[in-house]
Amino acid sequence: MNMEPFQLTAAQAAQAIRSGALTSEALVRSCLERVADRDAEVRAWLHLDPASALKAAREIDKRPVAGPLHGLPLGVKDMIDTGDMPTTFNSPHFQGFQPARDAACVAIARSSGALLFGKTDTVEFASAGRKAATRHPLNVAHTPGGSSSGSAAAVGDYQVPLALGTQTGGSHIRPASFNGIYALKPTWGAVSREGVKLYSAMDTVGWFGRSVDDLDLMAQAYRMHGAGQTLSELPRVTVGLCRSPVWSSIEPAGERALTTAAQRLRDAGVTVVDFELPPPFDGIRQAHDAILRGEGRAAFMNLHLQFGQALHPDFQAHFKEEGAITPEEIVAGYDLADVCRAQFGALMQDAGVDVLLTPASTGEAPLGLHSTGDHVFNSLWTLMHVPCLAVPCTTGEKGLPVGVQLVAPRYKDAALIAMAREFAKVIDVEGAPASRTFM
Amino acid sequence: MNMEPFQLTAAQAAQAIRSGALTSEALVRSCLERVADRDAEVRAWLHLDPASALKAAREIDKRPVAGPLHGLPLGVKDMIDTGDMPTTFNSPHFQGFQPARDAACVAIARSSGALLFGKTDTVEFASAGRKAATRHPLNVAHTPGGSSSGSAAAVGDYQVPLALGTQTGGSHIRPASFNGIYALKPTWGAVSREGVKLYSAMDTVGWFGRSVDDLDLMAQAYRMHGAGQTLSELPRVTVGLCRSPVWSSIEPAGERALTTAAQRLRDAGVTVVDFELPPPFDGIRQAHDAILRGEGRAAFMNLHLQFGQALHPDFQAHFKEEGAITPEEIVAGYDLADVCRAQFGALMQDAGVDVLLTPASTGEAPLGLHSTGDHVFNSLWTLMHVPCLAVPCTTGEKGLPVGVQLVAPRYKDAALIAMAREFAKVIDVEGAPASRTFM
Repeated sequence: MNMEPFQLTAAQAAQAIRSGALTSEALVRSCLERVADRDAEVRAWLHLDPASALKAAREIDKRPVAGPLHGLPLGVKDMIDTGDMPTTFNSPHFQGFQPARDAACVAIARSSGALLFGKTDTVEFASAGRKAATRHPLNVAHTPGGSSSGSAAAVGDYQVPLALGTQTGGSHIRPASFNGIYALKPTWGAVSREGVKLYSAMDTVGWFGRSVDDLDLMAQAYRMHGAGQTLSELPRVTVGLCRSPVWSSIEPAGERALTTAAQRLRDAGVTVVDFELPPPFDGIRQAHDAILRGEGRAAFMNLHLQFGQALHPDFQAHFKEEGAITPEEIVAGYDLADVCRAQFGALMQDAGVDVLLTPASTGEAPLGLHSTGDHVFNSLWTLMHVPCLAVPCTTGEKGLPVGVQLVAPRYKDAALIAMAREFAKVIDVEGAPASRTFM
Repeated sequence: MNMEPFQLTAAQAAQAIRSGALTSEALVRSCLERVADRDAEVRAWLHLDPASALKAAREIDKRPVAGPLHGLPLGVKDMIDTGDMPTTFNSPHFQGFQPARDAACVAIARSSGALLFGKTDTVEFASAGRKAATRHPLNVAHTPGGSSSGSAAAVGDYQVPLALGTQTGGSHIRPASFNGIYALKPTWGAVSREGVKLYSAMDTVGWFGRSVDDLDLMAQAYRMHGAGQTLSELPRVTVGLCRSPVWSSIEPAGERALTTAAQRLRDAGVTVVDFELPPPFDGIRQAHDAILRGEGRAAFMNLHLQFGQALHPDFQAHFKEEGAITPEEIVAGYDLADVCRAQFGALMQDAGVDVLLTPASTGEAPLGLHSTGDHVFNSLWTLMHVPCLAVPCTTGEKGLPVGVQLVAPRYKDAALIAMAREFAKVIDVEGAPASRTFM
């Protein structure tokens, strides 16, 4: 085996560093070489300073092992504050902006031994406006998804083993599906959003990796309740196959991923039953949209007043009188979300279902960079505040990956990770397509 | 009339500045003189630089009227980021800390013409730990309430006409009650919390003033839906007198304020009917506590990992294994909150009730600074995400003010303000006790 350090998963690298077989410096150097090879194609980074990254790695190598992420380089979506790197939100109004301190999620990763590798490209303010320049690692004519574009592409392209993203609609799980990687969007509220650019109260910080073990390392770093659980075998649980109320938006590649994942689980002896959400959930898509427009108006008010007409028209749309969101629409959205959220856990329990298997995206990554894809299969779960875990599954007609997601009730993150670890062994068997790029 | 500018309400001062009868500089100078007279007693400020405040006022005086707050000095609770003043969170770990930019709520106030007067004292991280040094303006042996201690005391003591506070439990409305002033805790989500120290997702930015018109000026500055509404007479609405499921915590002074307010409204011809919340609401107190502990653990995780044993024991308690909050308790709290929130608007509608009248605090401000009072009559509404407006009402046996609060369904902030403006004329008739201090 002639494996470069950059090819290691985060969990493999962490183990190698702990055992003394690898230094953080060697890992970072290898990742930097990978970036140097690939950046002209993929364009995942908004800020990356090789000398600083290597210096930080050498300092970590001198210290005793500090936590689960000791010596691991971490990419950070550039709408998350970093005290020693600019945070631009990919906005022309914040070029070179330097926050005074780390966002809470960055500080926790650092305290757990991680090394800040660089800042990844994102859709402006992780919302709309300027698109990320990032291109799909397997076909640069395609979007890698967004708004966590750079983080997902960088992990998918083996430029960094771990990265932070965020999800308000489908900004985290969808790009994981497109890039053939793993991602956890944890339970809402379980990881602090302090220092993360706000769009909506639904905003949730999550992470990308190339294995379930990678996701678990991060869950341990964030001290999530019960993180680090393992199961000795395929869990004796019932999987609810949930096409969801937005099934009409599915594309052939998305459908094939879902049915393939279900069949692979059944073939491995796992019980998979159909799970349907009751009628109130039919309104969730509209509720998510109303809440997003209402909270987006509040979130961008300061920028609207500061920058006026210079702000991208996408954001100005929040403040137009014509077609403006009404308080009644926002309240109707909140009311429906509350009703659905309150029954969601009980619905799963009553159906005897422990985890849901549901699409992670409509299908493969769309062509072009003008759209980052549709969040329709993600926003439902974001609004429900439930943990979602993306698992790679198939390859579509365009040769791009398509994943599925596993969804559990709120605060069942640790159990979700433990189940996903075993499920992934049968669902993710085609080999990560991204690995082709250096074979 | 020999009135000093510092005695003006924000609405009066705004009008005087617009008409050319007053300059921002004269107003700021007068407020600074008031602070100089009173600060040794009240200790409301953590940062106040008179020269900078006067300079900013002179600059505003040169500019055309920019917005509803043109030239008005604003106090800012010192857990809200300010780009040109330190933000210490009243924590020993953040002495002199200088954020790189304004919190969204500060930026909006500035864009609306406000002048940042200074930073007000708060309980550490607006949560626990170190108490504010602020003392009650009318009796320095008493707390002014908290955690928005300095903001409420400074407005109550006529040191500044307006101030920003926040509420997670009862940190905003309770100190308003104790200080005989007005306050609005708006609908959750209607004002951005970006750049405000996070404790819980329930955190809500609000403001203090000395009249309903003051609160409305701020609502206009924050472009709240429908702000600036006026009613031509006492509104033809039905008031629900809500003792709430925590009525057993009421003190004689709190009970007297509530019954007095109800009687004054009835005497003025307003229909007041009893309004009881159904049994699920009995669990709200426990739900609020569980959610606060769960989200507090996530919110302070970065500080716990960074500062370890140096962190105040109050915060370390979040991370003790023994008696730790469990995921099941947090989820039970969320589920109950969702159930109650989804029915709250309909409950009021079905009862034919347009607004609730309910205690703003258990009674008068407690003796001593070791406690800022009980949030039991506030946390219920914070968790329901509904707008709450504090109105001064009576004076208790210790000679300290006691207010009441008016509560409306989500996003009815503008209607709540309009109703409160008329109700205040009959509820708040004893004269602000704080005014005695300069008579």
